[in-house]
Amino acid sequence: MHILTAEQFNTSQIEKIFRRADYLRGQSATLAGRKKVYKLHEGRQLCSIFFQPSTRTRLSFEIAATKLGMGVISTENAREHSSSAKGETIEDTAKILDGYDVDLIVMRHYEAGAVARAAAVCKTPVINAGDGTGEHPTQALLDAYAIKQAHGRLTKLNVVIGGDLSHGRTVRSLSWLLSKYPKNHIVFVSIPELRVGSDVKKFLKASGTTFEETSDVKAALAGADVVYWTRLQAEYLKDPKAVSKGFSLNEKSIDVMKKTAILMHPLPRVDEIAPAVDADPRAAYFRQAAGGLYVRMALIDTVIQNG
Amino acid sequence: MHILTAEQFNTSQIEKIFRRADYLRGQSATLAGRKKVYKLHEGRQLCSIFFQPSTRTRLSFEIAATKLGMGVISTENAREHSSSAKGETIEDTAKILDGYDVDLIVMRHYEAGAVARAAAVCKTPVINAGDGTGEHPTQALLDAYAIKQAHGRLTKLNVVIGGDLSHGRTVRSLSWLLSKYPKNHIVFVSIPELRVGSDVKKFLKASGTTFEETSDVKAALAGADVVYWTRLQAEYLKDPKAVSKGFSLNEKSIDVMKKTAILMHPLPRVDEIAPAVDADPRAAYFRQAAGGLYVRMALIDTVIQNG
Amino acid sequence: MHILTAEQFNTSQIEKIFRRADYLRGQSATLAGRKKVYKLHEGRQLCSIFFQPSTRTRLSFEIAATKLGMGVISTENAREHSSSAKGETIEDTAKILDGYDVDLIVMRHYEAGAVARAAAVCKTPVINAGDGTGEHPTQALLDAYAIKQAHGRLTKLNVVIGGDLSHGRTVRSLSWLLSKYPKNHIVFVSIPELRVGSDVKKFLKASGTTFEETSDVKAALAGADVVYWTRLQAEYLKDPKAVSKGFSLNEKSIDVMKKTAILMHPLPRVDEIAPAVDADPRAAYFRQAAGGLYVRMALIDTVIQNG
Repeated sequence: MHILTAEQFNTSQIEKIFRRADYLRGQSATLAGRKKVYKLHEGRQLCSIFFQPSTRTRLSFEIAATKLGMGVISTENAREHSSSAKGETIEDTAKILDGYDVDLIVMRHYEAGAVARAAAVCKTPVINAGDGTGEHPTQALLDAYAIKQAHGRLTKLNVVIGGDLSHGRTVRSLSWLLSKYPKNHIVFVSIPELRVGSDVKKFLKASGTTFEETSDVKAALAGADVVYWTRLQAEYLKDPKAVSKGFSLNEKSIDVMKKTAILMHPLPRVDEIAPAVDADPRAAYFRQAAGGLYVRMALIDTVIQNG
Repeated sequence: MHILTAEQFNTSQIEKIFRRADYLRGQSATLAGRKKVYKLHEGRQLCSIFFQPSTRTRLSFEIAATKLGMGVISTENAREHSSSAKGETIEDTAKILDGYDVDLIVMRHYEAGAVARAAAVCKTPVINAGDGTGEHPTQALLDAYAIKQAHGRLTKLNVVIGGDLSHGRTVRSLSWLLSKYPKNHIVFVSIPELRVGSDVKKFLKASGTTFEETSDVKAALAGADVVYWTRLQAEYLKDPKAVSKGFSLNEKSIDVMKKTAILMHPLPRVDEIAPAVDADPRAAYFRQAAGGLYVRMALIDTVIQNG
Repeated sequence: MHILTAEQFNTSQIEKIFRRADYLRGQSATLAGRKKVYKLHEGRQLCSIFFQPSTRTRLSFEIAATKLGMGVISTENAREHSSSAKGETIEDTAKILDGYDVDLIVMRHYEAGAVARAAAVCKTPVINAGDGTGEHPTQALLDAYAIKQAHGRLTKLNVVIGGDLSHGRTVRSLSWLLSKYPKNHIVFVSIPELRVGSDVKKFLKASGTTFEETSDVKAALAGADVVYWTRLQAEYLKDPKAVSKGFSLNEKSIDVMKKTAILMHPLPRVDEIAPAVDADPRAAYFRQAAGGLYVRMALIDTVIQNG
């Protein structure tokens, strides 16, 4: 099986992956557990091939595989260094890798759809680690896992998604996942030029998930169970300074959030969340990133079990 | 022992390497076999140092070592990142690596002869993974292995080598290997400015291997047991468009090939073989690349056994 | 525990690390010993993150970890490829890595103090692999280890430190380590514009370690037990050619050295020591680099034992 998009999973598959992540997380708490996990896939190999560098995602996958006992073979900048620079198609590259007979290929590409095209010619399972403006399924799953960890559920949540809602794949994927669970309500907080796309609104309507759009950051934060914050990238803004102020959260601006709410962010953050916020127990972004390791371990494990 | 050139092996050594490759390939077909192979060199280390990036060759060696249970330490762009950028000689770099006491060094360099100079100061075995316009012995051996797999022999073959015969080391190495076996006949197909070098003709004559030169692609393909195709690089051509046409193979142009013939290519290919050819059972280039993994495993194994 | 500076160790801790390095070196001499060492930290992971490429230091650490049975996850050019390029702070990067739950982080950074700032937010042990003009503790320890190996002691030594004494961190670290042991005498040999800094002189005085400054290379070499030579980088010199001559050692210039003396260098060297010197038994720089592997193994081992 390949993992190409978050949309390929139904809720029962997602729950199963999360239970596996919980198990692997639990085992990691003790040395005996770590050693047990390390024996799971000893002698297997993961090849990670990144046509677009992404240190965090790559390290996270490679650490996950290493913890499962797998050997890791890696390239961090295949665009510059590989045969693709000489004009080789992604399909040819994939067929060659496929012939090297590893147990799993993790691929990131700068072009939407490229990973799916690679997977289409591979018998070896392929995990999409992000393909340009396309998909980043493991990010979507780790976002949902962080919500599950904090609230114990993925239903009946008031989720604020704020910042740049028109670029980036995390907003679409997260909305999609939330739409699969009943009774969630999404509040999109943004500015006119960065509003959420019509494709997202369409599948939310189809699923019966309610949502609203606003530019009132304060009111949105006050009602949220989950705040998912992203960066307003200056390059997309008419007047960066005028706008970004309300979207740069600090200790005061998160004061209105419920005690039980969490503040998430796909990271890296620059100035859209002040470092002083980190100490707040509601600041969940580093826990969110850390949980991603176990989600990735669970996915690798699942893919290998399923062949 | 170091592996610096294809020419260092006699035919009985080559056969031994191929038998080992066959064994390792066979073991890889089952999980039990893979685990057995994985125990072969557990606790040993391979250091791969590439002064010229080559993703495919590097990954292939590193996957091979990992499958043999070795730990792999790697640098994919030593030219830019290492002390060589500060003016360190290849000999100094090699002496330092030698002191790190790994079991095997795999080195690629942009300069012909550099790997041999490095090996000359190393007690640690060194495998040449390509040195500029010099040698690429593992490519030569995997080419021969692919022929052996298809025809069961390396003798009595009509081998067409076509495309750019004056640049690139694969043409020379393959010719050299074929000259070591009796009764092969080589047909060099090219254009005047890219004809095979006089050094190659010289050792073919010395060995008694017959050969001819032609620019008639169709006639050459029709008689071949093996077609080894390479790219005509535009930079070397007087009139790229006029020439390249006959040298871009497609489904129709390979129609004249015998049913039992194979079409090989060192890869990457750009437009010298159309993707539609891939589905033809005679298209052997991906099998050729895949076999390289087992040849490299066999070579690593051989080098370590011999110390 | 983090390893951020050579100054954090007292002499008994240093001796303990060196005894461990001796042990690991001894074990490495036999296959049985290697396998025993390989079992020490099986199932553990080291993540090496280099914001400034340094092939030699990185390979040395990664080989050390691999020999101890650890899985290694690596990035050789995090400055260009990681989120730091998007403006992420080193603290954020460190917190994310910390969440990935590896056993050890080895970090190099181009900015003095950056590794300490990263370590301050990490529960995972961090080893400083060099931070700009700041510290490079493992280099300092391997320098001391090489002296210990040659002379059996770190006291009562006449140590000449020559070349560029005002840039680079090795001169300061080595001076500091020597000042912790009684009865050493340091001779700084340089040219006026590259004299040793007042901070170094200050701690030497405070410790009671005697020292002198001179530009007479020959006299200095004649009296030395240890000669620690560094490069005069042309960019720092008023008149490169006029000056560098006396500071480029060759077979003749080292003739005055005692039979028992050793010639060290942090490497890479360019023309400040002629290759012909390498064959002299007093030339210790490659042994010095090689010993670094065991010092790094000992440090990794120590850090993991201490959690």
